Amino acid sequence: MHFADFLRDLVVILVGAKLCGELAVRLRQPAVLGELVGGVVLGVGVLRLIHPHEPVLHNLAELGALILLFEIGLECDLHALLASGARALVLGVTGIVLPFVAGYGLMVAWGEPTLTAVFIGASLTATSIGITARILADLGALSSPEARIVIGAAVIDDILGIVILSVVERLGATGTVELAQLARIVGLAVGFVVVAVVVGQLAAERLVSVLQRMRSRGILIVGSLVFAFALALGAHAIGSATIIGAFTAGLVLARTDPKVDIEHALKPIADLFVPIFFVVVGAQVDVRILNPLVPANRPVIVLALVLTLVAIATKWAAGFAVTGRNLRRVAMGAAMVPRGEVGLIFAQVGLASRAVTPELYAGVVVVVMATTFFAPPVLGVLFGRRRAAAGGELSPPPP
Amino acid sequence: MHFADFLRDLVVILVGAKLCGELAVRLRQPAVLGELVGGVVLGVGVLRLIHPHEPVLHNLAELGALILLFEIGLECDLHALLASGARALVLGVTGIVLPFVAGYGLMVAWGEPTLTAVFIGASLTATSIGITARILADLGALSSPEARIVIGAAVIDDILGIVILSVVERLGATGTVELAQLARIVGLAVGFVVVAVVVGQLAAERLVSVLQRMRSRGILIVGSLVFAFALALGAHAIGSATIIGAFTAGLVLARTDPKVDIEHALKPIADLFVPIFFVVVGAQVDVRILNPLVPANRPVIVLALVLTLVAIATKWAAGFAVTGRNLRRVAMGAAMVPRGEVGLIFAQVGLASRAVTPELYAGVVVVVMATTFFAPPVLGVLFGRRRAAAGGELSPPPP
Repeated sequence: MHFADFLRDLVVILVGAKLCGELAVRLRQPAVLGELVGGVVLGVGVLRLIHPHEPVLHNLAELGALILLFEIGLECDLHALLASGARALVLGVTGIVLPFVAGYGLMVAWGEPTLTAVFIGASLTATSIGITARILADLGALSSPEARIVIGAAVIDDILGIVILSVVERLGATGTVELAQLARIVGLAVGFVVVAVVVGQLAAERLVSVLQRMRSRGILIVGSLVFAFALALGAHAIGSATIIGAFTAGLVLARTDPKVDIEHALKPIADLFVPIFFVVVGAQVDVRILNPLVPANRPVIVLALVLTLVAIATKWAAGFAVTGRNLRRVAMGAAMVPRGEVGLIFAQVGLASRAVTPELYAGVVVVVMATTFFAPPVLGVLFGRRRAAAGGELSPPPP
Repeated sequence: MHFADFLRDLVVILVGAKLCGELAVRLRQPAVLGELVGGVVLGVGVLRLIHPHEPVLHNLAELGALILLFEIGLECDLHALLASGARALVLGVTGIVLPFVAGYGLMVAWGEPTLTAVFIGASLTATSIGITARILADLGALSSPEARIVIGAAVIDDILGIVILSVVERLGATGTVELAQLARIVGLAVGFVVVAVVVGQLAAERLVSVLQRMRSRGILIVGSLVFAFALALGAHAIGSATIIGAFTAGLVLARTDPKVDIEHALKPIADLFVPIFFVVVGAQVDVRILNPLVPANRPVIVLALVLTLVAIATKWAAGFAVTGRNLRRVAMGAAMVPRGEVGLIFAQVGLASRAVTPELYAGVVVVVMATTFFAPPVLGVLFGRRRAAAGGELSPPPP
């Protein structure tokens, strides 16, 4: 991609993100909804003004997701998150089991083979932590007890998602799974977060004290980002997701002295990068498969509608599995509804091994789209419209 | 490039930039010198840890150069720059004529054909505005009268560089140049800056008043960056350099009310992106061509040394063409010495049309390297070592 083409795409993405984000805020919706819609309009399905599959944009978008999760981690209180751990585990695990069982059962009832049913069930399991966390941030609701449980559950969900992905990959390739291998994947994924939090906390304190003694311009923010990127690479190296590493880096840096300075310097960087992620996510959506005027689309639309209803109902229902007083269970389940690219990866693996038909794949694409667009307005109502007007500040604006 | 590979390169670049930059600051040198040396060590010639020719890194580095010039523009006072206009023109034009004539004469005396001499002369003309501006910023010297003249001259130099490039491209392809075409290129390049400043100033005031009424998060900084990127694309569209557009955007936004807020939010973004540019510039340098133990390198080294002496002496001498009281002429000429990638582009065009031999091309590469590394320590002495300890803050640190 030539630099001028890249720059043009970047201008289109940022203008689209900010205009549609502003419109969403004025309509008392989270800004992220506008960014996603803006992406859909500018992307492959409608105007084709941006090229989301170009490596440069793809990498910048991924970087945006990392920076978002790093920022969310910085905002989270590790102790409060651990205190919500049991509830988060209930929400996360129920939110995986229910969609899997329902998706599997539906496909078997539909007359599909078992392997196909496993792939479709699995593709309904993974909540998109990026979208969920961003909506909560946009609504100024990140510090609520429900949000803490949801964020914890989404992290658990992402870790289990990696495990499920390994299982379906093995199933697709060989038709069997070895238990020892499964245990190793679970151990590595869970172990990474535990080790990263414990060791990372010692490392973060040392890092910060070294950075504070250095005199180069921008050393604190660049050093913090390098720490986040390094933990992301660590997570990737053991087969986990990079965003889990970035989130963990935020969690441990949140407990250091210059937390406020890091947050302050991170804000403009996140302002620039995070919308790129959501516009690029939106730009990959091809809404043309939903056109009912094309007869070939109709069976896909019916299938997609049923899958979407199952996907929404099962995650939403999982919220009611959480016990505790004064918790808005209806809001917790709704916050877990958005599925992200992990669901698409499941379906792509199935497509590659021919266990998933192109029609079913299109159905999963619709589920990802519909659940993503479902959450922002519903959560806007459930978490209180008042906060939406703040325009998605993670922290209150400086005086 | 896969995301994990990109992330790994990014971590290596940022760690290298900050460690070497810190070392430079401790040695009372501008941080940019450390970033360049760090790039050389990490790059193609030595450790090969980063891949400067990957499109993702290349585009991020170019974005870093744009953001740097935008930041420099924001720091510049348009009126003061215009007041220095006549002196900047003298410095810019003399600094192009002297190296061209000397380079041309040297090549003719060396027995090279006329066309070759034209290419080599042209490749010695273009000052790297990015490197020059960054050194002045690192030294805290951007607001000095000399720096204003140097920045103005570097802008004029870049505009004339585009004109000279068009001329040598035509010469290389057809052996002749049409005067009408030449006039058109000059007119477009000069006209762009004039129109961008005049129209841009009206547009900037409107833009800022719209942005201030919007409520989305990060709207001011993202809107300002979009303005800079759009002017960069405008400059590119008329055949000029993108960095000229970004610099002009900074100049006009510097005259709006929220200038300080824009600068403040731009700082962490520049902290992240600008070092990427300098490390990638350094990483492209292959120091192996300077190894005198390889006999084949020796004639190239002799030629390169002579060209480098000519390149340094002629730009430095141009400083003494500027009239005016109390101006440090020796510092102005020295600040114009760094050549950038424009010189390499000239030589590459010559190489492609076979007017420039591979040996001469290698000589120009050495000139670009040597002049870039010449300026930081020399300017550190000339602009006063005291300021270098500030660690390259463009603005004084907040209280």
